[in-house]
Amino acid sequence: MPSHPHPLAPLSEAEFQKTRDIVRALHGPDTSILFRAILLDEPAKDILVPYLEAEHAGKLDGSVPVPPRQVLVEHDLITPPANHQYIRTVVNVDKAEVVSQKVAGEGIKPYLAGDEIGDMLLGICLQSDLYREAMSEFAIPDGFEVTIDPWPYGGAEQAGEPRYIQGLVFAKDTTTGNPDSNHYSFPIPIVPVMDFATREIIRVDRLATGGAGDSLAPAARAGEPRKLHNSPQQGEYVPELRPEPRREGLKPLNVVQPEGPSFTPHADGLVEWQKWRFRVGFTPREGAVLHDVCYDGRPVAYRLSFSELTVPYGDPRPPYHRKQAFDFGDTGVGRAVNNLSLGCDCLGAIHYMDTLLTAPDGSANPSKSVICLHEQDNGVLWKHTNFRTGRGVVTRMRELVVQFIATLANYEYIFIYKLDLSGALTFETRATGIMSVVSIDEGKTSAYGNVVGPGVLAQNHQHVFAIRIDPAIDSYGPADTQVVIEESVGRRIDPDTNPFGNLYEIERRTVERAAWVDADSRRNRTLRLENRTRLNPVSGKNVGFKIISPETQLLLADPDSTQAKRAPFAQHHFWVTGYRDGELWAAGEFTNQTAEEIDGVGAMVERGDWFTDGDAGDKASAGGRRSSPVVWTVFGLTHNPRVEDWPVMPVEVHQVHLRPADFFTSNPALDVPSDRNQASVRVGCCAKPE
Amino acid sequence: MPSHPHPLAPLSEAEFQKTRDIVRALHGPDTSILFRAILLDEPAKDILVPYLEAEHAGKLDGSVPVPPRQVLVEHDLITPPANHQYIRTVVNVDKAEVVSQKVAGEGIKPYLAGDEIGDMLLGICLQSDLYREAMSEFAIPDGFEVTIDPWPYGGAEQAGEPRYIQGLVFAKDTTTGNPDSNHYSFPIPIVPVMDFATREIIRVDRLATGGAGDSLAPAARAGEPRKLHNSPQQGEYVPELRPEPRREGLKPLNVVQPEGPSFTPHADGLVEWQKWRFRVGFTPREGAVLHDVCYDGRPVAYRLSFSELTVPYGDPRPPYHRKQAFDFGDTGVGRAVNNLSLGCDCLGAIHYMDTLLTAPDGSANPSKSVICLHEQDNGVLWKHTNFRTGRGVVTRMRELVVQFIATLANYEYIFIYKLDLSGALTFETRATGIMSVVSIDEGKTSAYGNVVGPGVLAQNHQHVFAIRIDPAIDSYGPADTQVVIEESVGRRIDPDTNPFGNLYEIERRTVERAAWVDADSRRNRTLRLENRTRLNPVSGKNVGFKIISPETQLLLADPDSTQAKRAPFAQHHFWVTGYRDGELWAAGEFTNQTAEEIDGVGAMVERGDWFTDGDAGDKASAGGRRSSPVVWTVFGLTHNPRVEDWPVMPVEVHQVHLRPADFFTSNPALDVPSDRNQASVRVGCCAKPE
Repeated sequence: MPSHPHPLAPLSEAEFQKTRDIVRALHGPDTSILFRAILLDEPAKDILVPYLEAEHAGKLDGSVPVPPRQVLVEHDLITPPANHQYIRTVVNVDKAEVVSQKVAGEGIKPYLAGDEIGDMLLGICLQSDLYREAMSEFAIPDGFEVTIDPWPYGGAEQAGEPRYIQGLVFAKDTTTGNPDSNHYSFPIPIVPVMDFATREIIRVDRLATGGAGDSLAPAARAGEPRKLHNSPQQGEYVPELRPEPRREGLKPLNVVQPEGPSFTPHADGLVEWQKWRFRVGFTPREGAVLHDVCYDGRPVAYRLSFSELTVPYGDPRPPYHRKQAFDFGDTGVGRAVNNLSLGCDCLGAIHYMDTLLTAPDGSANPSKSVICLHEQDNGVLWKHTNFRTGRGVVTRMRELVVQFIATLANYEYIFIYKLDLSGALTFETRATGIMSVVSIDEGKTSAYGNVVGPGVLAQNHQHVFAIRIDPAIDSYGPADTQVVIEESVGRRIDPDTNPFGNLYEIERRTVERAAWVDADSRRNRTLRLENRTRLNPVSGKNVGFKIISPETQLLLADPDSTQAKRAPFAQHHFWVTGYRDGELWAAGEFTNQTAEEIDGVGAMVERGDWFTDGDAGDKASAGGRRSSPVVWTVFGLTHNPRVEDWPVMPVEVHQVHLRPADFFTSNPALDVPSDRNQASVRVGCCAKPE
Repeated sequence: MPSHPHPLAPLSEAEFQKTRDIVRALHGPDTSILFRAILLDEPAKDILVPYLEAEHAGKLDGSVPVPPRQVLVEHDLITPPANHQYIRTVVNVDKAEVVSQKVAGEGIKPYLAGDEIGDMLLGICLQSDLYREAMSEFAIPDGFEVTIDPWPYGGAEQAGEPRYIQGLVFAKDTTTGNPDSNHYSFPIPIVPVMDFATREIIRVDRLATGGAGDSLAPAARAGEPRKLHNSPQQGEYVPELRPEPRREGLKPLNVVQPEGPSFTPHADGLVEWQKWRFRVGFTPREGAVLHDVCYDGRPVAYRLSFSELTVPYGDPRPPYHRKQAFDFGDTGVGRAVNNLSLGCDCLGAIHYMDTLLTAPDGSANPSKSVICLHEQDNGVLWKHTNFRTGRGVVTRMRELVVQFIATLANYEYIFIYKLDLSGALTFETRATGIMSVVSIDEGKTSAYGNVVGPGVLAQNHQHVFAIRIDPAIDSYGPADTQVVIEESVGRRIDPDTNPFGNLYEIERRTVERAAWVDADSRRNRTLRLENRTRLNPVSGKNVGFKIISPETQLLLADPDSTQAKRAPFAQHHFWVTGYRDGELWAAGEFTNQTAEEIDGVGAMVERGDWFTDGDAGDKASAGGRRSSPVVWTVFGLTHNPRVEDWPVMPVEVHQVHLRPADFFTSNPALDVPSDRNQASVRVGCCAKPE
């Protein structure tokens, strides 16, 4: 092993700090710097691929250059009185030199950074006449105090608009004496809007609180301050504040690995488990990322990640049209990550990975246990019973789980990669946490959502996720992977080809240039990732993996709406685009307060990259070029809230699978031992042991 | 508790034997009886419901009649020389009297019974000149011997056709000395057809073995006998015959419940677990069935079951158009059930249930461990982290699994019901086992399937499942449940109702009469099962459950084909039909060798039952009546075989969920303890304990 860190290894604290000092030293004492993120600048693919090939061949002998160790610094430069720039600086940390600096263009509004989304907004509101005037319309019950959750402003409404943040206002019951009393169950129908540059409340929007048949506009307030409802406990979730006792009889269920786990996590992010070998990275925006995923020494994927998630709300009453979070682009799920707890977030023998987040002054902010790895059993993997001999051979599906959890103010997302013994890889999302709710006049119901508690309306909304799959099917070569659309199509009776009408045929079409593709279950439309030239010696077909993704509802907003224009990615189930270094974002790098998508998958398709050889012709003129394909898989949840989703919702689970399809020469799990588990016990009738 | 067995309790051995003796005594010594099945005759709903209501109210005090204990006997009467009748006799076992006898009509061909599907067909083939002549065309390698798997004949081709069975012929390598050597990897391209009445081989179909571009008809054989390929090991699956060593390093993973399981299984099939209470039945056709499913004392479902499964093949070359199994109707998955093994088919603390299958002479054939029940962990159930205090509250999803596994000759299905702490219930199917394969000339490939081994073609096929849901939403009353189709529909920008274009609306439509419904993910079409009158006190909406089912491809066969005519159920995602006692079969009671569906969901919809009050008018004239709705959910797998599916395939998993939707007044899992699991351990770097 080389003494130099692996090009994909997480930054060391020394590298982190050195980079920070280099950037700090670029500017004089009059310039204040807000450090947003300091993270590994992943090497360009054409530099990293030869390195990975040499690494896997055991030939890291110096003949292949080691990619330079580079660090990306996202930071704001604030030069008084009002010059504010968002800059991405790349530093070569070994050479201690700046490689590049990119200043965000006019109108770009960078994501919400750490110190922008705490209780700063509350402090500013309390100083604001506009806010105090609005709040005077309400009588907050005794013992309640106001809490304000900062939220992305949502879609821009005017060109040249300053960078804003909006606040969702709640009252918190302090009489419980419990700091975890749930303020989300007491929404107050105003939204203060702050200008980030001036730190002033520029407006306080009033929210409509009516129901079916009422106007879209908020009712005029007059006379006595409006009393807020006060229904303690119904909206609490911490156990000591719940009115009912904890349920009994749920006996412990332990996952025990007496000989330890089967996986080997290395200090530099490398993980080895049952023929799988991959590297786990962590970025502030994406959380855990898998690099260089190989099975039995054969590459499968260059990089796998969760890329974006938009949450548009379907309530037409202004300003709710601006409720549309981009949880990766506006905030970043890696920055919002939970520090996981032993025995809570996973069971069994668990390895935790830490990361370095970035404090506003650029110092490293170590964050413990942000990723957990563990094994789990997922039932029968394969079985056959010979009915003549009565012998059954059965193996169990073991999975390796790589999990992280993010809290976006009220809401939680659990993101999971699962690798399994059948050579398949699953992406899983679990949506949980507390829904974003608003006020409704007591006794009313609304077509825009569901009443989940007294005076509490949970609005209809969607969660649309995008996964990014950068494949490397049996080869890292950029020209070696192709994407094929496969469909199964029934045929009509034909005396020559289909005399009895049972024929169906598999139609294949190679994706030749950047395009979106919609799911179509009636045709069993499936995307295959294939090696362009390597054939399976048994079947004669291209070795590959197929993507199994649920056909879920796409974005519902009117195509002419700002919600839709900001999220083209959410309007198709698959996008196939041409690879470019650093292009990781389905909705584009900048999503905060945009009026429309900037350089997301919509623009990537528009650019017109192509994937096959031959005459570029008119293609090139659109800015495209010959590229290797990257696939973005889109799925989600139209969430019309249930009462059961309150006050904290049970997980809503989605899975996308990458399954080998003629990648292997037989079931790759044939060699999994079919040993009987020795720790299982029989339970007799009436729960007595037998 | 009454001393009489519960009306849904499994038959005792005494009841079984007594019934057999009653039926036997009905007939003289000249009549031979083939007993196919002796099973509980479930009480009529209008008799059972008052009993269940009294039971749950604790009022089984004699004022409500106990339903009579009745047994259904499916048997053939064979009176020499050639009178063969299929009869269903119902016996009141307490009164020792016959309640009814139903003789199957002309042309009905009952399912394949136990002794019809063993090696009897092989014995008859070996006596047949037609068979020997066909086999003489092939040179079986030394040390190989022929094995014949009986298969349902498939669709009828002519009116008045006798009852047939067909044989799939394979050669088995006996040189291994291992009785579990996999004969399926040596298919021989002939299909003998036997007439059941005469026990004679009436025809031997030759199979085409060509590839792309070859004729649909089998090539004429002449000259030397054709040599069968002989590639030992590639097609083996038992560990001692595999060429490669067992993989190492998969450390034991144990599920341990030191205080025992949390569920209580009772001797009569009643199971109680974490507010759930239900009864497990077992039928020869369906396997495990759930009756009277309640949560916290509130009914959810009257009866839940897997109803049918058709497996049509897409290879147009005759006689492959007849490859279409109905695994419930032609054979019965309960009859084909596996006896489960401790530590193999489930992990943890496992309760096994036994059943009584039926020997041909009507004696009880006790079958052990046909159902397993156990708990499992399924990750995070709900979580919220207060970002201000840093406190996370997290609970884990515990599930109760009710599982059984069936072997249909070469193929396995795993059927699972899962009940969970969030009040949801999941149906799961796992397809595994050995694919039904045929011969292909070596070196060729085919559009009709995939070459998965030397000379072995796995044909393209589908598996289409139907689940039957007989709901009882918060009431057993037959008029109390309604089925509502809910859709989420985006709206165009409108200055008055949708000024910013983000509005979407929920459209609801009650299913008023029997109908099929197709999935439509673009509209997020969802079926809700609701109580017609009972409203959720929080939301004001009807209490209910919603069905979450994957939108999968439906039957591909031409609507004019026999395959399609036999399986209308497989052509739509949902069917809503009017309840009638005993109507449990999506493709009809009789599927074997049919030309078209007989009294399945197609006929039930045609009949025109309706679900709402009011003027029946023209509806009644079609034979329908006011009924309570039953929902059939259809999903499946278009299985274009992968090389990885050979020789035994990794499970293909499907899930259908019944989730509460405004059934409860908050998240029903709020009272689940958020205790830390004490048995979890940290794994350090490089797999050392920390």
